[in-house]
Amino acid sequence: MAIRARRSHCPVACTLDLLGDKWSLLVVRDLMRGKRRYAEFLASSEGIPTNILGERLKRLVRQGVIRSKRYSQHPPRVEYELTPKGEELRPVMRAIVEWGVRHAGGRTSVMPASSGVNADE
Amino acid sequence: MAIRARRSHCPVACTLDLLGDKWSLLVVRDLMRGKRRYAEFLASSEGIPTNILGERLKRLVRQGVIRSKRYSQHPPRVEYELTPKGEELRPVMRAIVEWGVRHAGGRTSVMPASSGVNADE
Repeated sequence: MAIRARRSHCPVACTLDLLGDKWSLLVVRDLMRGKRRYAEFLASSEGIPTNILGERLKRLVRQGVIRSKRYSQHPPRVEYELTPKGEELRPVMRAIVEWGVRHAGGRTSVMPASSGVNADE
Repeated sequence: MAIRARRSHCPVACTLDLLGDKWSLLVVRDLMRGKRRYAEFLASSEGIPTNILGERLKRLVRQGVIRSKRYSQHPPRVEYELTPKGEELRPVMRAIVEWGVRHAGGRTSVMPASSGVNADE
């Protein structure tokens, strides 16, 4: 893990130091739904700006939440997958989905049942 | 709820539109741990800047996550409490605490057992 400023030892603050922004958990969500590649993340309906996507992918790799795997040598191309640490965000994601449906106007119809981040689970 | 730009109908994105930053969930955490007043939030170990605290409190009230209650008329003073919508963030908070302890270097010893946001629950 990269050295970073820790605001406190509270586990909520420590988690938000890593993931407390509008985009990181959307990339994690996309990976949980089976997306793997830069262009796929870019195509998600929230329209993540390409510079933010690039920065977030690097940061999530550095934090050990995702890892990159080269799938083409010429030209060099990588795809991404969740690490075990990233996989363990599923309970967080499920709780967020449930709250988002009940209280933030979210709809689960936009998420395939196989995603593992469905509110019906 | 205030009119706001919605990035998509995904419940994760909708939740992050409301709470996806480094501070909002720390205020919610403080309320879950029994804090009520501006000065108490300000005193939390993460050192939230006063302008950010003021803005986040207003925003959380506008979103219906917390509400303010006047406890002194002269001078006028308010304290805050979670609404039912805010109370229903407890499962999100618990999942974040668990992940933060396992993967982000957080310690639950900084959170009293009575907080309802302890990883041991």
